[in-house]
Amino acid sequence: MPELFDLLPPDEARSLLIGRMGPVSVRTETVGVADALGRVTARPYSSPAALPSFARSAMDGYSVRAADTFGASDALPAYLEVVGEVPMGRAPELSLSVGQAAVAYTGGMLAEGADAVVMVEHTHPTGGPTIEVVRPVAPGENVVQPCEDVREGEEVVPAGRALRPQDIGAMLAVGLTEVDVAARPTVAIVSTGDELVAPGEATGLGQVRDINTHTVAALALRAGAEPVPIGVFPDDLDAQRRAAWEAMERGDIVVFSAGSSVGARDMTARVLAELGEPGVLVHGLAIRPGKPTIAGIARGKPVFGLPGNPVSAMVVFDLMVRPAIRALMGESGPGRGPSEIATLTMDVPSVPGREDHFPVRLSRKSGGTEAEPVFGKSNLIFTLVRADGLASVPLDSGGLYAGDPVSVSVF
Amino acid sequence: MPELFDLLPPDEARSLLIGRMGPVSVRTETVGVADALGRVTARPYSSPAALPSFARSAMDGYSVRAADTFGASDALPAYLEVVGEVPMGRAPELSLSVGQAAVAYTGGMLAEGADAVVMVEHTHPTGGPTIEVVRPVAPGENVVQPCEDVREGEEVVPAGRALRPQDIGAMLAVGLTEVDVAARPTVAIVSTGDELVAPGEATGLGQVRDINTHTVAALALRAGAEPVPIGVFPDDLDAQRRAAWEAMERGDIVVFSAGSSVGARDMTARVLAELGEPGVLVHGLAIRPGKPTIAGIARGKPVFGLPGNPVSAMVVFDLMVRPAIRALMGESGPGRGPSEIATLTMDVPSVPGREDHFPVRLSRKSGGTEAEPVFGKSNLIFTLVRADGLASVPLDSGGLYAGDPVSVSVF
Repeated sequence: MPELFDLLPPDEARSLLIGRMGPVSVRTETVGVADALGRVTARPYSSPAALPSFARSAMDGYSVRAADTFGASDALPAYLEVVGEVPMGRAPELSLSVGQAAVAYTGGMLAEGADAVVMVEHTHPTGGPTIEVVRPVAPGENVVQPCEDVREGEEVVPAGRALRPQDIGAMLAVGLTEVDVAARPTVAIVSTGDELVAPGEATGLGQVRDINTHTVAALALRAGAEPVPIGVFPDDLDAQRRAAWEAMERGDIVVFSAGSSVGARDMTARVLAELGEPGVLVHGLAIRPGKPTIAGIARGKPVFGLPGNPVSAMVVFDLMVRPAIRALMGESGPGRGPSEIATLTMDVPSVPGREDHFPVRLSRKSGGTEAEPVFGKSNLIFTLVRADGLASVPLDSGGLYAGDPVSVSVF
Repeated sequence: MPELFDLLPPDEARSLLIGRMGPVSVRTETVGVADALGRVTARPYSSPAALPSFARSAMDGYSVRAADTFGASDALPAYLEVVGEVPMGRAPELSLSVGQAAVAYTGGMLAEGADAVVMVEHTHPTGGPTIEVVRPVAPGENVVQPCEDVREGEEVVPAGRALRPQDIGAMLAVGLTEVDVAARPTVAIVSTGDELVAPGEATGLGQVRDINTHTVAALALRAGAEPVPIGVFPDDLDAQRRAAWEAMERGDIVVFSAGSSVGARDMTARVLAELGEPGVLVHGLAIRPGKPTIAGIARGKPVFGLPGNPVSAMVVFDLMVRPAIRALMGESGPGRGPSEIATLTMDVPSVPGREDHFPVRLSRKSGGTEAEPVFGKSNLIFTLVRADGLASVPLDSGGLYAGDPVSVSVF
């Protein structure tokens, strides 16, 4: 049962795969901007209008002609006549002459002829229609100028942007209410193994419930895709071939969760290699856990054979499958999930030339976040349940020491 | 138009609010575990079974009686007779006598009488039914013992856990297919301001489109809640009262996006104060931006008056509203979104006694992540669109220097 690997570092494997995906032909659909949280824009959008479209006050106070306030101080205030107010949401109906002011509200327009706003805190009432101004203002002071937020024709969001709450707010603010986004790619998931039964079934001696279909489905969902479980199949070549063709039919991406034995993995590799050109591109990653990973392209679709054990499957999903999903949607971002830096609580040995990933529990301390390795084999699902994230030892490192900073991918 | 604030630090304000929310009476619902990604468990779950339920091989090789391999080496191999195999997913039908071995597959059962597994790499074929074993194994070596993943009765997930892909996998692995989770809290959103029009409408002079209803709705959705937009209302006391009562009717949480002028904010404060006991608890945060924030409890429901400008609204949502949503769901986690540490690219002044938040653009460098402040007023939505996250200057700091580490809440 020998197994030959030509191990690739994960970054190289990912670049190779995504580079070979070719011009991404993602379907697009049009959705309401208010319902587009997390969706990825299929084209750039520019603003049909300037924002704000008018000069507005940034403060509560009085719109004035700035020149009327020059030299004003506590000792020698400027006296201005208040001739009215500009109500919120209205165009001004009054115009200032020399020595006049109008009540202004934050977000409201200035009076005609005004070019600045005096904050109410820098004025004193006199009991009559006149106010004392005790600080001078420069022209434009306390005023948000037209176009200061965005100019007409300026880009609002680029193509490939995963829309965040503020992007939605910005599009709606300039009157863009619909948006073309990438359809959610479908991820067809096949679990293989003579020992597997569905989660709702009782297990006989030697049998285990299928974990990976649903773990991978949840990972795919979280990555913005639509999971399509194909089912659980035995380690039988014809059964797996049928499963693979159904997966190619129904998925934009195909993920096989391979059996754990070398024989079962070889069968998966053979089935995936038959699906079309260019075929398997990656046969093994320089990573632990996750070495026996298969990745390739068949007729334009990324296909993966993930290791059967749950920790490996999760590491490889994050490094390879999620970036492929995001690339299919045309996302221009990093493709990886959030990560943070923490301080390692104990030594972790590794081997140069291999990227090690290990589960950690995070605890917030006053001096920062600490990452404590969770001991547990990568074939145990509870190793992950007890952890808050995966820390990594870089490819070229022989290990990390207690106290070293470590990058943790939070899950 | 004076405005009196009794400013509270955000941490203190959050504790006060959540402390006064009382025994959380969140509705629960039962969902399929496979569909429960991100949902928060309403009670703890323990395992109805041990996992694995049988001793299984961790390697491809041969199950053996460990004692038969003691002292084996390249120079002096142990010779064992291979009497058959234990197929995947089956109970063993064969039993080992002294000097015998059986083919074992990763994840499969051992033969009766075997207590260890020899890796295939440590054996040589002899051409007949006998193999050479060139390394000794200890009892239990290369074997995953029953209960090693989880014991019967051991906790699988605690109450208040936001379910992750691995939690879903673990629950299904032990046969738990349904789960009681907190219902998604409804967040009723009211935008106020005489200057506001709906995003689909044309703006007249002095008018702006309502941004915050949809920004806050997207933030609520991302926090796990169900947004319920109530509408846009003028700065009119009776109109806002009617909106507030409808919001109390329809929301588990009520969020007012207040106007920007002091008068408009005072009206919101007055309306929120009328909604019920104990009423407004926080009237101003020691934070920039976000100072004019109102927070309270009315008849058990958290109610908020967020500042009208978008950056402030987003900062305060993250610090106050999101934790309230998560607390209502009974989540035991931190309640804050993901954050990471980056290196600041320039000096940022602040004032001790005030927590400053400023938008930054992140760039990944070989030495780590750099955070570059994005200049822009907090009343401009595009300040946020151009940023990747919000960095913060701690309450007791007079500012940060270029090169300092800074905590960035990624959005």
